[in-house]
Formats: sequence, C-alpha cells, structure tokens
Amino acid sequence: MTFLEKIKSAQEKSRSMLCVGLDTDHHKLPDILRTEPNPVLAFNKAIIDATSDLACCYKLQMAYYEAYGERFYETVQSTLEYIPKHILTIGDVKRGDIGATSEKYAYAYQEMFAFDAITINPLMGFDAAEPFLRREDRGVFFLGLTSNPSARDFEYLELTNGKKLYEEITDKVCEWNEPKKNAGLVVGATKPHELRALRARAPELPFLIPGVGTQGGTIEEVKEANGKGIAIVNVSRGIIAASKGKDFAEAARRAAMTFV
Amino acid sequence: MTFLEKIKSAQEKSRSMLCVGLDTDHHKLPDILRTEPNPVLAFNKAIIDATSDLACCYKLQMAYYEAYGERFYETVQSTLEYIPKHILTIGDVKRGDIGATSEKYAYAYQEMFAFDAITINPLMGFDAAEPFLRREDRGVFFLGLTSNPSARDFEYLELTNGKKLYEEITDKVCEWNEPKKNAGLVVGATKPHELRALRARAPELPFLIPGVGTQGGTIEEVKEANGKGIAIVNVSRGIIAASKGKDFAEAARRAAMTFV
Repeated sequence: MTFLEKIKSAQEKSRSMLCVGLDTDHHKLPDILRTEPNPVLAFNKAIIDATSDLACCYKLQMAYYEAYGERFYETVQSTLEYIPKHILTIGDVKRGDIGATSEKYAYAYQEMFAFDAITINPLMGFDAAEPFLRREDRGVFFLGLTSNPSARDFEYLELTNGKKLYEEITDKVCEWNEPKKNAGLVVGATKPHELRALRARAPELPFLIPGVGTQGGTIEEVKEANGKGIAIVNVSRGIIAASKGKDFAEAARRAAMTFV
Repeated sequence: MTFLEKIKSAQEKSRSMLCVGLDTDHHKLPDILRTEPNPVLAFNKAIIDATSDLACCYKLQMAYYEAYGERFYETVQSTLEYIPKHILTIGDVKRGDIGATSEKYAYAYQEMFAFDAITINPLMGFDAAEPFLRREDRGVFFLGLTSNPSARDFEYLELTNGKKLYEEITDKVCEWNEPKKNAGLVVGATKPHELRALRARAPELPFLIPGVGTQGGTIEEVKEANGKGIAIVNVSRGIIAASKGKDFAEAARRAAMTFV
C-alpha cells in the first residue's frame, strides 16, 4: 500500500483525522502504573485500548523514549506491535543529516522500527532528505511551519525571492514529493491563517498538524483552515495527560472524543 | 569546569584539534570482531585505545547507535565510560523540537548520557534551543553551515536583510551564547571560504568542523581558514574506516596522525 492509500484507509476506519501523540514521560505517569514491569509500555497499551477506535494514527515523540534509556528499543518496538495494523504510526524524530547518516536513520526508523511515517527537519536540503524518500510506502513529514512561538526566528524570514523561508521549504517539499508521492508537511495548528495559505500552496501534500490542545490550537480552526486537504491532527498532552488518576485511560478517551 | 575550559584543557593535553568520529556501523565492522559479545563496543574501545593520545574529542554519531536497536543504550553508555575523562565527548544528535520535547532531549543527552556537548538543529528557533543552553558545563553546537552539497537548498538563501540564512543563524547563535558562553557552531570543512568569513563574524564561538577526509575537506585548509579561533575538527570515516582488516586499530592510528 502506498503512503497515501494507508492514510486514506486508516481515516476511513476511524472516521477522524485524530492522531494520538504518545509523548509518554516516564517521570509523569499515573501512580497506579508504578509497579508495572514497564510502566511506559503499560501506559501506552492502556491509551491505545481506550482510543484505537477514534484515532487514525499514533505518533511516538521519540525524545521520551530515548530518555527512557535501557528500555528505549523494547518500549518503542512493543508499543508499535500493540497498535492495530490498520492504524498509521508516525515516528516523530525530526532527524536530518548528511546522506550516509540519513541512510542510517532511515534504516533505524523505516526498516528496524518500521514506522509508516517519520518527521524530518529539512534544513540541510535535498541530499539529507533523499534517503528517507526511497520507499513509496513510507511517508516523510518535513517541518514546514512549526507550532512554537520562536518559529518566527528563522521560518518566517523574508527571502529576496519574495517568499518566506517556510514557503520556500514548502515549495521544495512539493518537488520532493513528485517521484513517489510520499512527502508531507508539518504545519502548526497555532497558525490557522498560515495553514490556510499553505493548504492553497500545496493542495496535494498531506499535512501533519500538531499544536491542538495544550499549545493553543483548536480542532475547529484547523478543520476550517485545512479545508478538503489530507490532514492528520495530532493531540498529545490534551489526551494522554487528561488525568493522572486511576481513570487516566477513560479520561483520555473522553478527551479524544472532543477532537474527532 | 565550563564548556570553554573543558575544550582548552582537552586540547592542551592532546596538542591537537582532532575529534575522532565514532560513526560505528554494525553492518561494516572488521570480520575479526564478529564473535565479540558487543562488536560495536569492541570496535570503539580498540579505536579509543589507538587514538586517545592524539584526540581532544570523540564524537558519537547517534544514528549508528539508534540503528543498533536493543543495544543502543548499553553501547553508548559503555563507550562513554571508556573514554578517558580529560577528553571531550560530543553527541551528534542534531535534535531540536518544541520546548517541552527539547527538555526531554536535553535530559537524555546532557544528563542521562552526560555528553560534554551535543549538536542541535536551530531551524525551530530560540525556544527550541533554550532547554539545551541551561548548563554552562554543556556545550551546544548549532548547525551553521553544513558540509553537504545540498546546504545550498536553504542555508545559502539570501534574506531581505542582506544576509544569507546561515549568516543569520550564526548571528543568533552569537546572541544565544552570551549568557553562559556554551554555544558553538557547526561549519563544514568543505567550505573554507565561508569558514574564514564565519570565523571573522563569530570570533568567540567554538567551531565544530566536520567534512575533513572522505567528504573532501583538508586539515591544512581548515587550519588556515579558522586562524586562531577555538575549533574542533572531526574526522570519522577517514580514521575509523582506514582498514577493515585485523590491523584496523593501527591503521586508524596512522590515519589519525595525519590529521593532527
């Protein structure tokens, strides 16, 4: 199945654009999980059980797993195994390096862990991006316009060609998407005006839209600004941190229902 | 010890700017190591034994360790433990994410693994960079001008303020360096003309200079272009891939001697 077919199929089953962000912080888990052999994995499984009929996608923010030390590999691998096969998985890695190194990252996240899609930082240009674009069944979401306030430092800079840097990045990603239709763009939900303009600029690209919930974006604004484009809307803390009590999974489900 | 004191002390002992890049690919190890319980760790130890009097620094390209799967944590941790304490360690991670996530990466690489310095991608701006800049004893090398050909795609773009993007990034990194003097810049050895100009632009910043050897830069050009600035010059494949035979460690030492 191509990357686009995977998204379509997952969204037909979930009837939603919702991606649940498994940004699972082992320092902030509900007390009830403390005695589990692998508390992060136990948490992820409970969240997946509680939300898998609502979500088209799960996104693992890799920072939290790298910070889990010895259990990095086991926890990522076992979480991915537990996610029902028709649901998309995204490795939020934001990597990008010289070609030989990007090849190694591609091996780690597209083959070894076998995420359906990953996020990539485009700053180093095409030869750093190309190793991630070789498989038509693996999506690559490039950072376009990020949801954080300091996106203004560089992403908004005006170029002499009349574009802003994030627009130039978007145009390049459209080119990189041509051969295999496996590229996409990360566009923050906190910037609905720019989201609308980028959707017009890149009508074909799937957008991964973070920043709904804790960061301030709303699902209604996103849906309106995105129009009919293919989009996956990520919510992390707004769902997984809905409660720290025994009811954390039910609370996550209730929260997730407000985002579908 | 501050970050700058650490560099100074390490370079006084080694009398060199040489950083040996431990980009250890478990698919490309010398045959003689195949029966070792942890072949990557055995390789790293042999390279460290053969070069520790010549190098002021070891840099671990994290992609290779993430691709090592289950052994990620053990291999990084044990390699770091084996490096003599007076030698600097750099985690080449090129991370960068929204604040809460950058905090988690900072925990993983500055606390858990306790690298002396890490590399960071500046694209997302200050709030993504700030969590890495909190400790004066931990250096942060931001990507300034990278050694790959496609650096031209974005890093060289002309801005309406008269600068190129990599110059704007450099100026921001100079600002970010002010409070704790713990920032630095990655500048590719493949661009000696730009290296010279960036050195004039940011005389105080330590530079991490990759791209010598396999990628085409020469140590003589780098030394000349860098002048009297603080610099760490990384060589990876040019040293660790000098031989795939039984003599791989001695060959690495001979190669390293040509870069000091």
